[in-house]
Amino acid sequence: MPREITGFSNPLVKQVKSLRDKKHRRAEGLFLAEGLRILTEALEAGIAPRMLWHAPETAGHPLLEKLAHATEAAGGEVFVTSTDILSKLSGKDNPGAVIGVYPEMLTPLAALDRTAAGIWLVAERLRDPGNLGTILRTGDAVGAGGLILIDDCTDPFSVEAVRASMGAIFTQKVSTARWPDFLDWLRSGPGQLVGTSLNTENDYQDPHYEAPTFLLIGNESQGLPEAYERECDLLVKMPMLGKADSLNAAMATAVMAYEVLNQRRPR
Amino acid sequence: MPREITGFSNPLVKQVKSLRDKKHRRAEGLFLAEGLRILTEALEAGIAPRMLWHAPETAGHPLLEKLAHATEAAGGEVFVTSTDILSKLSGKDNPGAVIGVYPEMLTPLAALDRTAAGIWLVAERLRDPGNLGTILRTGDAVGAGGLILIDDCTDPFSVEAVRASMGAIFTQKVSTARWPDFLDWLRSGPGQLVGTSLNTENDYQDPHYEAPTFLLIGNESQGLPEAYERECDLLVKMPMLGKADSLNAAMATAVMAYEVLNQRRPR
Repeated sequence: MPREITGFSNPLVKQVKSLRDKKHRRAEGLFLAEGLRILTEALEAGIAPRMLWHAPETAGHPLLEKLAHATEAAGGEVFVTSTDILSKLSGKDNPGAVIGVYPEMLTPLAALDRTAAGIWLVAERLRDPGNLGTILRTGDAVGAGGLILIDDCTDPFSVEAVRASMGAIFTQKVSTARWPDFLDWLRSGPGQLVGTSLNTENDYQDPHYEAPTFLLIGNESQGLPEAYERECDLLVKMPMLGKADSLNAAMATAVMAYEVLNQRRPR
Repeated sequence: MPREITGFSNPLVKQVKSLRDKKHRRAEGLFLAEGLRILTEALEAGIAPRMLWHAPETAGHPLLEKLAHATEAAGGEVFVTSTDILSKLSGKDNPGAVIGVYPEMLTPLAALDRTAAGIWLVAERLRDPGNLGTILRTGDAVGAGGLILIDDCTDPFSVEAVRASMGAIFTQKVSTARWPDFLDWLRSGPGQLVGTSLNTENDYQDPHYEAPTFLLIGNESQGLPEAYERECDLLVKMPMLGKADSLNAAMATAVMAYEVLNQRRPR
């Protein structure tokens, strides 16, 4: 049975709300996801929330009932609360009627099975949580194995990144690594490291990409450091006809990832 | 010579700050852009700001000097102010040292030269300013003519949309139209209307796209209305291998637009 929580000052409300801050997420190893659609994606990936919060109006919705059942079956707790408190928890006017609290799941590099997928996404000093979440979502769409975050990236478990991932935070493996450790791991097995860069004349449609392909995306405003480009097996660039001579990092990732996918899919 | 403004209560500070709200932008026909890079893109597109605001520290920077000169030559005004006031104007901690105030530039459909470009982007009920700006930036990269916003879209002149466009708001034509008016205009001349949809089996790499191609993107969460899909000359879908069966609207636009571009570029 769900527990009813009515007060803003309830310590659980404070605890959950605190997960909007990275410091508290890290301390508790927990993060927030919102919305029936995203929580249902998580469940389909076999992941139930530790806590499930919903408004009384949502009770009876078949997806919610399924989530509530799975939460309790997995030893978690279900809470019914007001939409005002839900808004406070999520920082959004309309928090999509339901909030889940999940354990942060980072996969150590050594535990990644690189041969499980033909494409892996690797992002370096990615700053924008919307870009990070969108890249996860693109990874899900192209059947990537996961996203490896190099050096200091924005937090993949922020409310904004999780929201932009549309559930892919639960289906894609996420790893973090410093550059030298990533390189050591990469070179210990098969894998083609492909960087997108403006410092090359190689058209991105010319090479034959070899699986597993590791697509390396640089920081939004600076691109990849030269030393990192030198470690790539291949540098490619997309044609740019415009004035700005740049693409958003998440766009470049999508265009590259679909090229790799297109080379391999049956047509 | 730049005019110095030191007080937060200066009416000009209040006026410029008010442009962060759509209501005031509409009333004044003005919008804000930030950062030397974006303002320089604007200048290269032949557009000088009505007002140019910068911090004393930025004086002497060659790009700023060029902007200041162009602003005054075009009859605009240059203001020197504190970084605190700049932050207040932009709503950002670090507003990129310079802010420009520009006249909103919408192009009526009837004034678009559809044969001037092979690709046009058309977005329907786009809600997210970051997506809108990113789509403008993608349009610039693929050499699109502009972006046509159908029905109720988020404001292309919001600070977030302008920022995400990275200057493409100045290089791409932007039009707004209700759907029936857009269709009337579209059908009055050449043009292939291509919708991305999950309700089709047509692979996006199969058709030969005809110029000018109008790529129609639907609302982020609902996609295109069925009635709008029925008006398309062609519906296509991208392969999706993942669990979520969706791509971010801006990602889908980028992947589609590069397919059209790739079909036409010399290889």
